[in-house]
Amino acid sequence: MNDLFLRACRREPVDRPPVWMMRQAGRYLPEYRAVREKADFLTMVGTPELAVEVTLQPVELIGVDAAIIFSDILVVPQAMGMTLSVEEGVGPRFHQPLRAPADFRGLRDPSPDGDLGYVLEALRLARRELAGRVPLIGFAGAPWTLMSYMVEGQGSKAFTHAKRLLVEDATRAHTLLARLARAAGEFLAAQVAAGAQAVQLFDSWASALGPRDFREFALPYLAEAARIAAAAGAPVIVFAPGAGWALEAIADATGADVIGVDWQTDAADARRRLADVPVALQGNLDPSWLYAAPAVIRERTHHMLDAFGGRGHVANLGHGIHPDVPPHHARAFVDAVKEWRAS
Amino acid sequence: MNDLFLRACRREPVDRPPVWMMRQAGRYLPEYRAVREKADFLTMVGTPELAVEVTLQPVELIGVDAAIIFSDILVVPQAMGMTLSVEEGVGPRFHQPLRAPADFRGLRDPSPDGDLGYVLEALRLARRELAGRVPLIGFAGAPWTLMSYMVEGQGSKAFTHAKRLLVEDATRAHTLLARLARAAGEFLAAQVAAGAQAVQLFDSWASALGPRDFREFALPYLAEAARIAAAAGAPVIVFAPGAGWALEAIADATGADVIGVDWQTDAADARRRLADVPVALQGNLDPSWLYAAPAVIRERTHHMLDAFGGRGHVANLGHGIHPDVPPHHARAFVDAVKEWRAS
Repeated sequence: MNDLFLRACRREPVDRPPVWMMRQAGRYLPEYRAVREKADFLTMVGTPELAVEVTLQPVELIGVDAAIIFSDILVVPQAMGMTLSVEEGVGPRFHQPLRAPADFRGLRDPSPDGDLGYVLEALRLARRELAGRVPLIGFAGAPWTLMSYMVEGQGSKAFTHAKRLLVEDATRAHTLLARLARAAGEFLAAQVAAGAQAVQLFDSWASALGPRDFREFALPYLAEAARIAAAAGAPVIVFAPGAGWALEAIADATGADVIGVDWQTDAADARRRLADVPVALQGNLDPSWLYAAPAVIRERTHHMLDAFGGRGHVANLGHGIHPDVPPHHARAFVDAVKEWRAS
Repeated sequence: MNDLFLRACRREPVDRPPVWMMRQAGRYLPEYRAVREKADFLTMVGTPELAVEVTLQPVELIGVDAAIIFSDILVVPQAMGMTLSVEEGVGPRFHQPLRAPADFRGLRDPSPDGDLGYVLEALRLARRELAGRVPLIGFAGAPWTLMSYMVEGQGSKAFTHAKRLLVEDATRAHTLLARLARAAGEFLAAQVAAGAQAVQLFDSWASALGPRDFREFALPYLAEAARIAAAAGAPVIVFAPGAGWALEAIADATGADVIGVDWQTDAADARRRLADVPVALQGNLDPSWLYAAPAVIRERTHHMLDAFGGRGHVANLGHGIHPDVPPHHARAFVDAVKEWRAS
């Protein structure tokens, strides 16, 4: 059993850091695209056998040290009653975003076992099929990120609608964020009960908030979701890309075991800033560097590993892998981690 | 003559900070939209009388302490021979982006007086019509940002093509960046000669680069453009949104008189980090806060002014004003600055 990933999450000594990649089960793999040709994205997410098939692909094809369940952060709003679609080239979309007060009243609090049981089933099945080869990670979207999508309806540059809600009706925003914190936290706890050996909270749209708003609308709810999840006993990873300035505050408020570092943040700086805090760090190669030749990928990866210094580090990209990266470049990244030793 | 803006750029004592807004001549003003109905965006940019008309609007209607010439950062690549269009809802677009080596060979080095003479003419005319009421600002795009657009062809989330160029053919990228640094710097110097009393370099896509790449591909060329511009004798403002982590490095490398601070960066933090550096700071209210009620705008603006502390501060937004902000909210921001006094 390869338990490097779990040991690194707990900051135990390891021969070398474990490695996995955000979006490692994804379009850059021809084997993923073959499954995707037979079923659309939401069918894949909703069908445990298909989700597990692609979850295992990067373990077998790329050699990563952890599997992350194939799913989507928007399954939680969907379970709250919102209609989700994912169109090729457009991305995920809620066709009736939350705008008027009445839109908010229609939401229900999801039951992990009922509304999201298909994700738990996929985790149970994945855990069985992994048979101890590598640990299995579950995940959920963080409250601010989920709320942004629910209000905006889709990805956005300025998140105008979501930010208007914060300034025009902060109370309504706080009420929804509190519900989402409980929903995300309980969903993660249920994922651990179903077999996830670690869980990650993605606050993907943290970058849409300035420091004052991040502290008011994102951090407390990220912390509450992490707290509920942590009670289930597995390591909790928190990743808020675009909020690299807040690493200390995130570590402090969430009590997470592992803090994700985005690729815009200097790795050595992150390590130095959190030197006295008992957390592991995860990240942070710029995914664009996987376009480079394998020798360059190797040099950049070793440079990044040197900066983190080995112990208490989960090697990863600083964002999801781009869909047009050649699979052998992803392997070059993973192999570069595997051959590295702390000097 | 209201010279608050120039005094603040030079860190001289002022009764209160000057205020202007990025994109202050823009779609949020009905008077701008009235001009825009008669002429498309590029016609407005290319016709000095129209450019000057909208340049003066925020001085007269909103009461800002500086005018910035109405233009676009992409006039430089256009002057280098690239065909630019601006479509409603799509934004600016180069229909033949730089991809193959041959695409790069077709570029010429622009002459400010020839290819960009219409911008200089607009500056001369604006300066005359302002008649000393407030100072006039010129601007240009920074090399990395211009190159991203030229390679990408349009705005982008991941800037895949531009970043591929950096990893696949760094030499070609450096060669183009050096040409753009000279073009942008000489264009700014020519703007000063034509009447601009300060100039700003916009590195709008700094956020697309991680720290190592920013230091290699953005900062040296930003510095070179700033150096050439500074020789013309007017204050130079440098703004690299998304690179708040690099404020010290930007101040050090560019020698700029004023460093722009984006809204994602904490104002008090920025002030503290640059306390010992002889630069003024510009910014940084989150433009989304202009959606709030005027009383809230006032509170947020005073909070921001307190954080910067008055001296050596040019009040501004931390990004361009959103097109759907009511004009009286923009005025509430400007008025809040005008009534503030350092405590």
